[in-house]
Amino acid sequence: MSGAPGGGDTGGTAAGFRAAWDEIAPVGRDPGSGGYLRYGFSEPVRRLEEWFRDRVQRMGGRLETDGNGNLFAWWGPDAGGNGQRAGRSGDAAGGLLLGSHFDSVPHGGGYDGPLGIVSALLAVTDLLDRGGPPRRPVGVAAFAEEEGARFGVPCLGSRLLTGDIAPERAAALTDPDGVTFEAALGGPPAGARPELLAGLAAFVELHVEQGRALAELAAPIGIGSGIWPHGRWRLELTGEANHAGTTRMADRRDPMLTFAFAVLAVNKEARLRGAHATVGRVRVEPNATNAVPSRVAGWLDARAADRHVLDALVETVHRKVAERADRDGTTVTLTPESASPAVDFDADLVGRLRRALGDDVPVLPTAAGHDAGILAAHLPTAMLFVRNPTGVSHSPAESAADADCAAGVQALTDLLTALACD
Amino acid sequence: MSGAPGGGDTGGTAAGFRAAWDEIAPVGRDPGSGGYLRYGFSEPVRRLEEWFRDRVQRMGGRLETDGNGNLFAWWGPDAGGNGQRAGRSGDAAGGLLLGSHFDSVPHGGGYDGPLGIVSALLAVTDLLDRGGPPRRPVGVAAFAEEEGARFGVPCLGSRLLTGDIAPERAAALTDPDGVTFEAALGGPPAGARPELLAGLAAFVELHVEQGRALAELAAPIGIGSGIWPHGRWRLELTGEANHAGTTRMADRRDPMLTFAFAVLAVNKEARLRGAHATVGRVRVEPNATNAVPSRVAGWLDARAADRHVLDALVETVHRKVAERADRDGTTVTLTPESASPAVDFDADLVGRLRRALGDDVPVLPTAAGHDAGILAAHLPTAMLFVRNPTGVSHSPAESAADADCAAGVQALTDLLTALACD
Repeated sequence: MSGAPGGGDTGGTAAGFRAAWDEIAPVGRDPGSGGYLRYGFSEPVRRLEEWFRDRVQRMGGRLETDGNGNLFAWWGPDAGGNGQRAGRSGDAAGGLLLGSHFDSVPHGGGYDGPLGIVSALLAVTDLLDRGGPPRRPVGVAAFAEEEGARFGVPCLGSRLLTGDIAPERAAALTDPDGVTFEAALGGPPAGARPELLAGLAAFVELHVEQGRALAELAAPIGIGSGIWPHGRWRLELTGEANHAGTTRMADRRDPMLTFAFAVLAVNKEARLRGAHATVGRVRVEPNATNAVPSRVAGWLDARAADRHVLDALVETVHRKVAERADRDGTTVTLTPESASPAVDFDADLVGRLRRALGDDVPVLPTAAGHDAGILAAHLPTAMLFVRNPTGVSHSPAESAADADCAAGVQALTDLLTALACD
Repeated sequence: MSGAPGGGDTGGTAAGFRAAWDEIAPVGRDPGSGGYLRYGFSEPVRRLEEWFRDRVQRMGGRLETDGNGNLFAWWGPDAGGNGQRAGRSGDAAGGLLLGSHFDSVPHGGGYDGPLGIVSALLAVTDLLDRGGPPRRPVGVAAFAEEEGARFGVPCLGSRLLTGDIAPERAAALTDPDGVTFEAALGGPPAGARPELLAGLAAFVELHVEQGRALAELAAPIGIGSGIWPHGRWRLELTGEANHAGTTRMADRRDPMLTFAFAVLAVNKEARLRGAHATVGRVRVEPNATNAVPSRVAGWLDARAADRHVLDALVETVHRKVAERADRDGTTVTLTPESASPAVDFDADLVGRLRRALGDDVPVLPTAAGHDAGILAAHLPTAMLFVRNPTGVSHSPAESAADADCAAGVQALTDLLTALACD
């Protein structure tokens, strides 16, 4: 792998993958939990971006930013962004973009995001080794704030790039310390960059699987068919603060009771419908041991195979919680914070992936949101998944074998080779 | 009221009380909630202490600190603290101490604590006006960190003074920003001061009522008979962090479910026993919308009329939550954080209060912890309560009419006069 910085094996082997992976594995790792604290625009993410820039430069790539915190590296003909477009979507000369994100949820695993960037860089390295500079633009993207763990809106970088969120709204988002997105970015976000998207023929995001489907199928990699519709809702429950010691139980208006009921109702309604629904975040005021809370806010994350099931789940939870709130003397409001419609990945691109990788590679949907889900509305998009033996995600227990990661790199290389020959 | 700084009516009238009260009412008030942010050793509490020192000096009192953050003012003969003891507990020449605390829970009311200090200063003013310097020591205390809202241990100042907590343990307590109690205090706490306590014949704490008993009895003030046994327990529930979108419901080990069950079980078991029990504080890790939590900690505050009922309540909750945890695939630990045994106030002192105030003044227990509950194990102690029309406590909705507060001042003045004549 003469094109690989520092030499060594190709990323298509377990040892070659591991050599690259070890360069970033310590960055932002919390020694206590073993998980990662890679919040958007934090020092660990800046170090990962520095690593990205350094590696791209040694690979002879061109670096580009889009003014929204997203970082791109390009090889081959100019993919545009300056009016010099190499092609249009679907055009055989259009750019082929790979990539994912560096940021993590708090104490998340190390593969969710970075695996898609590192694999893409290794695949481009192998492509350059095989045939030299590609005839069509080949790029790798590092999208900003995909998890939404810092500013609350997932896929914030890709939503800005595509225009799915107004730059003014994004600029004003704040993190828990009150820092605005604009301040973290270092200036107002640029917003939609249609000319950049217009130069792309396809986007493919490789990602560690966030479930056990591939493990149960004994398959190292899989092809994404689409993304379940999903959304986030804020459930605000208001009661009356009071002294925990002296207030008679009958005199209380305790929103924690309504919250507890809601958590159990969400779980029950999701199970009944084969959906996934979670209350994983809560904020209590005043959150003091000896005070009945005045207010409890919980966040509902819900996903289902189709929109009707999802809507029925959320409506049923809302109705039941409102009935319980009546009994608790509390009030309830349910506010949608984000909604992501069902995504079906590009049938033609999925077909090309199947031809390139073989018919024995499983095709499966995911219930997780991804930058690929945002870009899918704007250009042909697909995903690849790498087996996760534990099936665990957003946790230090997330895992992937080096050999499976190498198979993912190999699949990206095969895909780039196949598309470059179209 | 020639002894009153700035002149004006006696504190035993509504107008006189209001004039003094208005001097401190704005300090630490959050304009958003209307509640108070008066954490121990915070700038608002330092301003209240400054007000206290200033007023005491204008009243000709002597200021004393105990090296634990507690502040004392004295009139009449030396109450000691320097080996010059005026008397012993029960001795007719022993010191008579009034007082309460300045600190609040987050967004609590303004009366809880400060009312007992302001009323005491007004009563001493009236006593001085009536008869000049008292023949036995009369004092007013401002105890530190009574709510435990900053360092987690309620009645921290009085516990240090009495030796109920080791100064080394108190020194190492940290607030949510990691500041130690020792750093907030400005040095290591002095710990027990038995010679200071030995000079006292009685302690009486006036406090706004934290319930509606006096309102229902149409009584402006009441006499405390004792304090229910009570305690705080930390309930730690551990599961496995996972992706909220992709993890099948059946594959989860979600401690938020166990927590929700616990909240409802605590409420049910308290109602069944006529006890008071609350989960008002929670901490979730990682507390992200799209992550099944790895860990949820909830704090249980429980109180009952006797120890057996309290023990049965906590044991039943623990057993039922453990059964639920088995079904959720989570683990549970329940750790006592503080335990306060039942307190019966001094029968002789309560009798003197009844004789001084009249037999029509109600005598009632409280379920709230107070510095009086700590001191009761060391010297004759009692409490007075002032009617709270809303019955609400630890909330901006806490209230007290000026006329009722003036009745409280009058009761303290009557008590000091009666005891001084013993």
